[in-house]
Amino acid sequence: MTQSPSSPFLPIKCGRVEEINTQEENPTKPMSDRHGIDPELLQRMVYDALVWSSLHGLVVGDRNVQRSGKVPGVGMVHAPFALLPMSFPESHWGQACELAPIFNELVDRVSLDGEFLQNSLSRTKKVDAFTSRLLDIHSKMLENNKKEEIRLGLHRSDYMLDEETKLLLQIELNTVSCSFPGLSCLVSELHRSLLNQFKEQLGLNSGRIPENTNLSQFAEALAKAWKEYNNPRAVVMIVVQTEERNMYDQHWLSTVLKERYDVTTIRKTLAEIDEHGVLRPDGTLLVGDLAIGVIYFRAGYTPTDYPSESEWRARYLMEQSSAVKCPSISYHLAGTKKIQQELAKPNALERFLENKDDIAKLRKCFAGLWSLDDSSIVKDAIERPEFYVMKPQREGGGNNIYGDDMRKALLRLQEDGTEENAAYILMQRIFPTIAPTFLMRDGICHKDHAISELGIYSAYLRNKENVIMNEQCGYLMRTKVSSSNEGGVAAGFAVLDSVYLT
Amino acid sequence: MTQSPSSPFLPIKCGRVEEINTQEENPTKPMSDRHGIDPELLQRMVYDALVWSSLHGLVVGDRNVQRSGKVPGVGMVHAPFALLPMSFPESHWGQACELAPIFNELVDRVSLDGEFLQNSLSRTKKVDAFTSRLLDIHSKMLENNKKEEIRLGLHRSDYMLDEETKLLLQIELNTVSCSFPGLSCLVSELHRSLLNQFKEQLGLNSGRIPENTNLSQFAEALAKAWKEYNNPRAVVMIVVQTEERNMYDQHWLSTVLKERYDVTTIRKTLAEIDEHGVLRPDGTLLVGDLAIGVIYFRAGYTPTDYPSESEWRARYLMEQSSAVKCPSISYHLAGTKKIQQELAKPNALERFLENKDDIAKLRKCFAGLWSLDDSSIVKDAIERPEFYVMKPQREGGGNNIYGDDMRKALLRLQEDGTEENAAYILMQRIFPTIAPTFLMRDGICHKDHAISELGIYSAYLRNKENVIMNEQCGYLMRTKVSSSNEGGVAAGFAVLDSVYLT
Repeated sequence: MTQSPSSPFLPIKCGRVEEINTQEENPTKPMSDRHGIDPELLQRMVYDALVWSSLHGLVVGDRNVQRSGKVPGVGMVHAPFALLPMSFPESHWGQACELAPIFNELVDRVSLDGEFLQNSLSRTKKVDAFTSRLLDIHSKMLENNKKEEIRLGLHRSDYMLDEETKLLLQIELNTVSCSFPGLSCLVSELHRSLLNQFKEQLGLNSGRIPENTNLSQFAEALAKAWKEYNNPRAVVMIVVQTEERNMYDQHWLSTVLKERYDVTTIRKTLAEIDEHGVLRPDGTLLVGDLAIGVIYFRAGYTPTDYPSESEWRARYLMEQSSAVKCPSISYHLAGTKKIQQELAKPNALERFLENKDDIAKLRKCFAGLWSLDDSSIVKDAIERPEFYVMKPQREGGGNNIYGDDMRKALLRLQEDGTEENAAYILMQRIFPTIAPTFLMRDGICHKDHAISELGIYSAYLRNKENVIMNEQCGYLMRTKVSSSNEGGVAAGFAVLDSVYLT
Repeated sequence: MTQSPSSPFLPIKCGRVEEINTQEENPTKPMSDRHGIDPELLQRMVYDALVWSSLHGLVVGDRNVQRSGKVPGVGMVHAPFALLPMSFPESHWGQACELAPIFNELVDRVSLDGEFLQNSLSRTKKVDAFTSRLLDIHSKMLENNKKEEIRLGLHRSDYMLDEETKLLLQIELNTVSCSFPGLSCLVSELHRSLLNQFKEQLGLNSGRIPENTNLSQFAEALAKAWKEYNNPRAVVMIVVQTEERNMYDQHWLSTVLKERYDVTTIRKTLAEIDEHGVLRPDGTLLVGDLAIGVIYFRAGYTPTDYPSESEWRARYLMEQSSAVKCPSISYHLAGTKKIQQELAKPNALERFLENKDDIAKLRKCFAGLWSLDDSSIVKDAIERPEFYVMKPQREGGGNNIYGDDMRKALLRLQEDGTEENAAYILMQRIFPTIAPTFLMRDGICHKDHAISELGIYSAYLRNKENVIMNEQCGYLMRTKVSSSNEGGVAAGFAVLDSVYLT
């Protein structure tokens, strides 16, 4: 069922991976002399980069300004970014891009297998109230025999490059509310602009920053889904949190949708949808007077987005409607960690995919990933906690458990003998490349050593049997200081970055 | 010498004008039903406009955030703007544009007449320390017989439309540090974007927003001046204040200069120029290691920019250099209020211009403008203060004196019998159109009645006898609430606006 633990220093063919930070520097990395850069040149690049981000909308709401998560145009600050793009090998880049349409197809296939989803998550359901609510809605949809004719997925698969094995290993596959489709493109543009100006002085002539077009492609996917819905008066609804400091990332998407496709977006919280949403007998979702053609979730992926029954009513209402949901409940569930772990089991992929090459490609990026049912793994993790990470089912960085905390948690779960272990999975920690870098935040340049996580965006659109889009869309590099040892790249001092292919 | 006072309600052919606010509304203005706009539509436009400004760099530093005037990318807030463009008659618009190259030529001619500048300002010199220092530098240049071969002017002539006479009347001609050449273009783009989306609902189909290209043209003028200087390794230096919350306006210009012409800009305060600047025997100005080809002043126009002798040394150093100065001391002096008043005297223009049509066109936009030597005018202003404004020689809004304050100041000057009256001029107040408008500031929409001032940018570049550029460049509309009765449109709650030609 589950694999035996392999050394993270050897190639791992099954299961998936978790990131790790080591405190050591690795002086042999490409561009490792970055910290030796001329201080005056550095200062100029820092200034130019800050100016560029301000003029080109690479901004977020400043957490120190009260209204910055509600009112656009006030309390803006440049988005945190890496001053220069992170080196990444061309071959692994190609591999990650190639995987995107295969993962899209996998998600779609898994989402169609309601029984698989319900069974795989049955134990999780008992201990994780959030997953349980999603499964309830999913069950009702199954009972009603409700088929989604138009299915839209805007995904992001996150990878790290293992330093020792030189393997590209998947961290997770996000099927809901993938952040930064807009700002990530801007960071690539910023880096391109800086390299245009300074590549001679930096000695960065040999590589390239790949085109980053996920903003266009996500907008295209939303527009095409809207077109398939086939109501010219319908709008795209972005489901938003009540406070959203990352609103500009979302506004970029709305702007491109409007300018390029003349599609209007509205922004609503789950509570507002509950208050103003109604379902017509034909399945049309009305919010206020507006028919909703496509629902794009940028909220609703985490328990804190559902403080009351109101939000759950809204989610159920939307799921019942004929609007294209990005994602539907089944796509959402297909992206959970438990399903990720189930799919890493031997012969699991074969249930959903026929093409052996595709299956082999997916497997190649999986690393150790286990249920807590596996007592030999749990034993090993207690003995050698440095090689594992314990991940709760629920989303959001900062929840992962490492090291001695993990050891204690595992021991407690063993003693208690409860069902609670179904709320977690175990993943192998990986040891990514550590590189000297400059991280920009609040106008200040931090010189530090950092690790990176590469996210590959992808879009999938299908209407009945007709696959309209299935493509890789662009990328997000996230970089964070390597000495911050918790919570993955998404948490802590992470900055937006891009890829410098070498 | 000076004209007798005319009623501001009658056409005035000579002299210039001052703005006024009346508290009354005028319900017959075009688009006067703006305040009756559907609240939901208004809310959507407000939101979209705030988003647009954030994504497109229509931003300034927030005065509530400490570093926002020094560090780009932090403490940003949308620039204050009018939600919709201000109606303006096509014919007056054409008139203002046509005047731009004539004023350019006038400034250039006046600047060449050192004796005229020195004589006209001789009494001002005694009572205005700032003008006195400028004149000292100017004198030294005259003594050294220093000729500026390359002369660059980036000007803005400000006008108001007098409501009663329907005359376009000049407020002032700015020859130094004209602000908003960048952001004004963005506001026009913002308004175009909003009208594209909402013109049907707003019933704004008949008019148009004219192209606003001053950013491109100012950059072109700076690049051409840089090219005339003919040192490929030289840079453009922007002279900046130590704190500059309007830095993004300037950064836009640097960005276009770099991207379109590959010309590098540096930013230096007067104190930094004093510290790091040296003059080579051939006249080349070096700041640090960099040769300066063009000096673009965005500071140095107001006494507070010269807190010590250091700043004056810097100004003198620059003036002595071969760098193209925008503006030179002589252009700077040609734009003073006293010179404006002198040029409004009968036969003054004829000293500088030959073309009778051009002279007539300029005169047509002049209104009442007098020296305080004119006792009959002073008497009238004391009796009817509502028809005048008293303007100090020094720059910067908020220094003008109105109403009873003016009356008292004039009486005091009469009694004292000092030279101090040379520090002021008297201008006729004008009564501009008042229009219902929406003013956006700090994310809040203020519904109010407002007056507007139209600024027409222009560029002039000459190398010896060869006039390389002499053209109108674009415009800045500034709008402020009409109940705020002091300091001109530049002071108080003024917002960036654009022109809706009807």
